Amino acid sequence: MTTTTPRPLVDAPQAGDPRLDADVTNVDIAHLSQVLLGHYPELRLAARNLMADERFHQVDGLSPAEHRERVLGQLRLLAVEGDVHRSFPTRFGGLEDHGGFLSRYEELTHADPSLQIKVGVQWGLFASAIYHLGTEGNHDEFLPDALSLAVPGAFAMTETGHGSDVAAIGTTATYDPATQEFVIHTPFRAAWKDYLGNAGLHGTAATVFARLITSPPGGRAVDHGVHAFYVPIRDAVTMEFLPGVGGEDDGLKGGLNGIDNGRLWFDQVRVPRTNLLNRYGDVAEDGTYSSPIPSPGRRFFTMLGTLVQGRVSLDGAAVSAARVGLTIAITYGNQRRQFSSASPTDEVVLLDYAEHQRRLLPLLAETYAAGFAHEDLLAAFDDVFSGRNDTPDSRADLETLAAALKPASTWHALNTLQVAREACGGAGYLTENRLTGLRADLDVFTTFEGDNTVLLQLVGKRLLTDYSKTFKGLDATKVARLVAERASDAARYRTPLHRAIQTIADVGDPRRSAGQLRETATQRELLVDRVETMVAEIAQALRPAQKADPATAAAIFNAHQHELIEAARAHAELVQWESFTAALERVTDPGTRQILTWVRDLFGLTVIERNLTWYLLNGRLSAGRARTVTSYIDRLLARLRPHAQSLVDAFGYEQAHLRAPIASGAEQVRQDEARAYYRAQRASGDAPVPEKYKR
Amino acid sequence: MTTTTPRPLVDAPQAGDPRLDADVTNVDIAHLSQVLLGHYPELRLAARNLMADERFHQVDGLSPAEHRERVLGQLRLLAVEGDVHRSFPTRFGGLEDHGGFLSRYEELTHADPSLQIKVGVQWGLFASAIYHLGTEGNHDEFLPDALSLAVPGAFAMTETGHGSDVAAIGTTATYDPATQEFVIHTPFRAAWKDYLGNAGLHGTAATVFARLITSPPGGRAVDHGVHAFYVPIRDAVTMEFLPGVGGEDDGLKGGLNGIDNGRLWFDQVRVPRTNLLNRYGDVAEDGTYSSPIPSPGRRFFTMLGTLVQGRVSLDGAAVSAARVGLTIAITYGNQRRQFSSASPTDEVVLLDYAEHQRRLLPLLAETYAAGFAHEDLLAAFDDVFSGRNDTPDSRADLETLAAALKPASTWHALNTLQVAREACGGAGYLTENRLTGLRADLDVFTTFEGDNTVLLQLVGKRLLTDYSKTFKGLDATKVARLVAERASDAARYRTPLHRAIQTIADVGDPRRSAGQLRETATQRELLVDRVETMVAEIAQALRPAQKADPATAAAIFNAHQHELIEAARAHAELVQWESFTAALERVTDPGTRQILTWVRDLFGLTVIERNLTWYLLNGRLSAGRARTVTSYIDRLLARLRPHAQSLVDAFGYEQAHLRAPIASGAEQVRQDEARAYYRAQRASGDAPVPEKYKR
Repeated sequence: MTTTTPRPLVDAPQAGDPRLDADVTNVDIAHLSQVLLGHYPELRLAARNLMADERFHQVDGLSPAEHRERVLGQLRLLAVEGDVHRSFPTRFGGLEDHGGFLSRYEELTHADPSLQIKVGVQWGLFASAIYHLGTEGNHDEFLPDALSLAVPGAFAMTETGHGSDVAAIGTTATYDPATQEFVIHTPFRAAWKDYLGNAGLHGTAATVFARLITSPPGGRAVDHGVHAFYVPIRDAVTMEFLPGVGGEDDGLKGGLNGIDNGRLWFDQVRVPRTNLLNRYGDVAEDGTYSSPIPSPGRRFFTMLGTLVQGRVSLDGAAVSAARVGLTIAITYGNQRRQFSSASPTDEVVLLDYAEHQRRLLPLLAETYAAGFAHEDLLAAFDDVFSGRNDTPDSRADLETLAAALKPASTWHALNTLQVAREACGGAGYLTENRLTGLRADLDVFTTFEGDNTVLLQLVGKRLLTDYSKTFKGLDATKVARLVAERASDAARYRTPLHRAIQTIADVGDPRRSAGQLRETATQRELLVDRVETMVAEIAQALRPAQKADPATAAAIFNAHQHELIEAARAHAELVQWESFTAALERVTDPGTRQILTWVRDLFGLTVIERNLTWYLLNGRLSAGRARTVTSYIDRLLARLRPHAQSLVDAFGYEQAHLRAPIASGAEQVRQDEARAYYRAQRASGDAPVPEKYKR
Repeated sequence: MTTTTPRPLVDAPQAGDPRLDADVTNVDIAHLSQVLLGHYPELRLAARNLMADERFHQVDGLSPAEHRERVLGQLRLLAVEGDVHRSFPTRFGGLEDHGGFLSRYEELTHADPSLQIKVGVQWGLFASAIYHLGTEGNHDEFLPDALSLAVPGAFAMTETGHGSDVAAIGTTATYDPATQEFVIHTPFRAAWKDYLGNAGLHGTAATVFARLITSPPGGRAVDHGVHAFYVPIRDAVTMEFLPGVGGEDDGLKGGLNGIDNGRLWFDQVRVPRTNLLNRYGDVAEDGTYSSPIPSPGRRFFTMLGTLVQGRVSLDGAAVSAARVGLTIAITYGNQRRQFSSASPTDEVVLLDYAEHQRRLLPLLAETYAAGFAHEDLLAAFDDVFSGRNDTPDSRADLETLAAALKPASTWHALNTLQVAREACGGAGYLTENRLTGLRADLDVFTTFEGDNTVLLQLVGKRLLTDYSKTFKGLDATKVARLVAERASDAARYRTPLHRAIQTIADVGDPRRSAGQLRETATQRELLVDRVETMVAEIAQALRPAQKADPATAAAIFNAHQHELIEAARAHAELVQWESFTAALERVTDPGTRQILTWVRDLFGLTVIERNLTWYLLNGRLSAGRARTVTSYIDRLLARLRPHAQSLVDAFGYEQAHLRAPIASGAEQVRQDEARAYYRAQRASGDAPVPEKYKR
C-alpha cells in the first residue's frame, strides 16, 4: 500500500505566473517528466510510488541503533514486496533484468539513502557477488538465503589498509588439501576488512575477498590473486561472532547511520573448498588451481568488473539527490522574498536576483545533463549484463563510462545540495528540510565504490590507450576512415570514447564558428577539441616514460597526474553534453524542446566558461569570442528563469518524496499573510509613519 | 585542570625524513607557531589548553537532548573558569578587553563548535546586546544575571520571514504611555523570531528586536525603526513560557545540535518602559522619542554595527576548523600508502602523489592567508571597540573588512574540510576522525551572522562608494596625492580598502613584469589591478541607474550583481594576500621565512590561476606568461611538499585538540606492521610466488 499526498505546486501556470511573462514558449511538464523517466518509466514510477510510502521514510531524530533497526525492517519489507530479486536468475524468482533492477534501486534515494545503500549491500553486493562470481553450486547453496534476507551478508572486500587498491589486499585464503578447506586469515591490522555494511551488527555471513594460495605438492606456495569466498561470520541465533572471527563496529559516520558498517578479521577460519565462488577460478580437491581466464591480471579485472553496477547505481542516486535538492531550493526561491529596492512595498522573490539564478540554474542544467548521461550509462550497463552486447570491449567501455560519470555526478550532487542549502538560508540548515541530511548521506559517494580521483585516473589512462591505439602508425586519412567506420555502427552510449574521436574529421577552425555559441556543432567542437588536445599533449609528455626505469616512469607519470585527471573530467563533461544533446531528439513538444535546448546550451557554455582559460591559452577562442560566453550565459539565465519551476516540477516529485516544509507551499502562505497584513494596514490608514517621513 | 596528551608527531625531522630530502631550508616550528598565535599568544594558549580538557569535548553519539544538556553544563563551567566576561565592563568583573575575549573565544572551536556558538549566543550576543545597546540602567538591571548565566538568554533578531534583512522585521513594540510599558507583538507567522539559540529550551529571557512605535498625542503613530528590548520569556522555575509568549523548538539541524535553537512569538506582551535598551534611542514617560543619532538610517546601522564581533569571531573559528582539518589530512597523507608503480614492494605515501598535493597544499596556503588576515581583522576590531580608534570611518572600515573576510574564510573552511575528508577516504567519513562533524557544524557559518552573499554585496557597494568618492572631480595627480596622504598614516590593517587604491600610483605595464611571478610587487599589481578594474567597470556600467526610476535602477543593479560579488571576493583575496605578505616580516628565522614566502606565493598564484581568464581577457597577462602561472605553482608544490607536515605542526595542536585516530600515528603503526610482515615473509623465502611468475 502506498500513501501519496497531493502536490501543492501548481503545474499549469496561472495568469500572472512569472512563467508566462517572458515569452509564449512553455514547458510541457507531463511530457518532459516522461522523457526524464528514461528507459524504464513504469519500473521507476512504481518504485517511486513505493518510496512515497512512509514505512520507508527516514525518520529524523532516531538514534543510530533505532535507525539501523528501522532500515533492517525496511529491507525485510522490500525482500517481500520490493522486487529486489529482479536482476537475479529466474530459477531464484528473478527476471535477469539488470537495468530494471537498477532503475528501481535508484529510486530508493528518495526514501532514505541508508535504506538504499543497505539494499545495495545485501542484493547489489553480497548476493550479486555470489551470483556473478559463483557458479551453479554456489548459487544453489548460498543464493536463496541471501535473496530472502534469511542471511544478511557483508561484502568484505575493502581493508583498513586498502580501499580502491583491491589488488593489494592482505587477507589470505590458503587451501589445505588434507581437509579440503580454505583457511581464511588476516595477517596484520591493516588487513582487517573495514567499512562493510552488515558487518557491524546484522550480518551472519560475508563474501570475503582474499588472496587464494595453493601449495602444489613439493613446490612453493602460489598466490593466485584475489578471489571471493563465502564465509559465515555470526551465529544466526546468538548473533555472536563464530570462532576465529572478530570485528568491531565502525561507529558513527558523517551520514548513512542507518547502516551498520563494521570491521572483520579472521584468525585461521576454515571454510569448505566449495565456499570458493568459483566462476573465474577453482581449486580441485587435490589443490590444483584452474581458471577459464589464464592471465591473472585479466582475471582480476574481470572479477572486479562485475561490480560496475555499484558505480552505475551511485551515478543514478546522485542525480536523484541533486534533483530533490534543486526542487526544494528553486520552489523556495520562487516563494521567498527578501529586500526591496525597486518597490517600497513588495520585496523581491529570491529567484529574481541575478546571483540566485547564477548559483542555481547552471546546477539545474548540469543535473539535467547528468540525468540524461545516466540513462545512457544504464542502457549500456543493461546491454552488457543482459548479454545482448557482452564483449571484452563493451565491458571495458562500460567500466570507463561508469568511472567517468560516477565522479562527475557524485561531486555535482554534493555541490548542488550545498548551494541549495545555502540558497535556503537558515531554513536550509534545518534537518526537516532534507538538504543537510541528503548531503551528509551522499558525501561518501565520492570515495566509496572507487575513489573519484582514482576512477578519473583510470579514465585518463583509458583515454591515453585509445589515443595511442588509434593513431599509432596511421596517417590522417586512415585515422578519419577508421573513426568513421567505428562510429557508424556503434550506438551512441556504447562508445563515448570513440565518438569523441569521430569529430576530428570535421573540425575546422573553431575560432571561426565560436560566435555561434548556441550552435550544437560549435559546442561539440569546443568540448571535443579540449579532450583530444589534452590527451594528445599528455601522451606526448609521457613518451619518455616508455623507456625509463620504473621509478623514473612513475615520476614522469606523477608529474602529469593532475592534467590526466583534468582530461578525464573534461571527457566526462563531454559525455554528459552528448547525452543531453541526444536526449533533445526525444523531446517532441516544440516549446519544451526549445527550452530544454537553452538548458543544454547553459550546460555546455558553463563547462566552456569554467575552462575558458584553456580555450584562451590554446588559441581556441579569441578574447572577444570568450567574452561572449559569459554574456550569452547571462542571456540564457534570464530566458530560463521563468521556466525554473517547470523544469524542477518535471522531475516529477510529490510532497511524499520532497518532505521539506519549505517546499510545501508553507512559505507562500507566510508571504501572502505578511503582505496582506501590510496591505490592510495601509488601506486602513493606521500604518505607523516611518520616522524619516515624520521629521 | 587540563588534561593534555603527548603529541606522537615528531616535530624535529629525523634522518630519512622526507622533509630533509628536498633542500636544507627548514621550518622552525616553534617560531612559526609563535607567529601564528598572533596578537594574543598567552590568551590563545591558555584557552587552547583549557579546550584540551575533556570536560569541554564533544562526545560523539549523544542524543541531541544529552548534547544540549552537556553544552549548557559546559557554559556553566565557563561562566566560572572560562574568562568569558573579559570584554565586559570592569564593574561587572570584566576587563573591557574585546580583542582578547574574541581570541579566547575562537579557541572553543577545538572542543565543540556547539559549545562555541552557544557561548557566542549568551555572552557575544545576548549579554553584548545589553551592554552595547543599553545604558547604565540596563546594565545594572540585566547584565549581572546574563554574565553569570543565571539568565540564559536568546538574541531574538532574525525572523522566519527575514534573516539578513533586519530592517524589514515585522515584530512591533508599541509604547503605551498609560502604563509606561512597551507592548511586544508578533503580527503574523513570518514575524516569529527563528533560529535563536537558547530559545528552544534553556532561555528565560531574550533581547527582542522590534520596530519601536510611539503615538504622539493627537498625531499618527510613528515607526522609529528597529530597537532592542529585554523581554523575559520563561518562568525560571517551571521553564514554561510566560503568558503571551509562545514558540517551538527548531528541531534537528545539519550540525550544532548541542544548541537549542528555537522560535518565539509574542502576543501583546507588556514590558516596562525601561526594558528598552536605550543607548541609541529612548522613550520618555510621556511617549516622546529621542535619540543621539538623528538619522534613522545611520542609527539603525550603528546599532547593527555593534554586532560585528560575531562576524569577526566566525572568521577566526573558520580558520581554526580549516587548520584542524588540514592537520588531520596532511598527517594521514604522510603516513598512509596506496598503490605502487615505482617499486614492487613499497606503496606510495599519499602525499607524494601530485594530485594529493594539488588538492591539499593550496588549501594549506589559503588557510595561512586567512589566518594572518584574521589576526589583522582582530586587531582592527580591538582598535575600534577599545576606543583607541573609534570613528565612524574606522567602524565602517572594520565592518567592511569583516564582511569581506567572513565569507572568504567560512566558504574556505567548508571546502577544506570536504577535501580533507575525501583525501582521507572512508576513514575520513567516520565521525571519530572529526572531519564530517566539523564540516556539518561549520556549514551554517556561511549563512548566519549575515549571509555570505549578502555580505559580499555590501562589500561591493562599499568598494563602489570608495571609488566614486575618491575619483569624483579629481585629476590623476590629485588622486595620487590623496591616496598617498591617506596611506601614510593609516595602519595597514585599518584601511584595506584605501590601501588597495594606493598602488595605482606605481602600476606600470603589468605584462612586462608578469614573468617575475614570485615577486611580491608583481603579485600585488595583479591582485590590486583586478579589484580596481572590476570596480571601475561596474561603476561605469551602473552610471545609468543614477538617473533611472527605482525599478529600472534596481534592474540595472541586478544585471551587475554577480560581477559586484566577484569584485568583493577579489577584494577579500587581496586583503588576505596583503596580510600574509605583511606577516612575512614577523618571521625572523630565514629558513622559515623562505618557506613561508613560498606558501604566500602559492596562495597568490592560486588566486591568480583561478582568475586567469580575467587576466587573459583583460590583457593583463599574455598567454605565454599565463602558462607560467601553473608551472610555477607546480614547482611550488614540489618545494613545499617536504615541509607540509611542519607547516601543519606549526598550528600547534596536541592530540587533545585533534582527537582523530587517523592523525594519532595509528596509521603509521599499521603501515609499519604490514611492511614488516611482508619483509619478513620475503626474507624467510616463504612468500607465495605470484601466479604470473609461476606459469
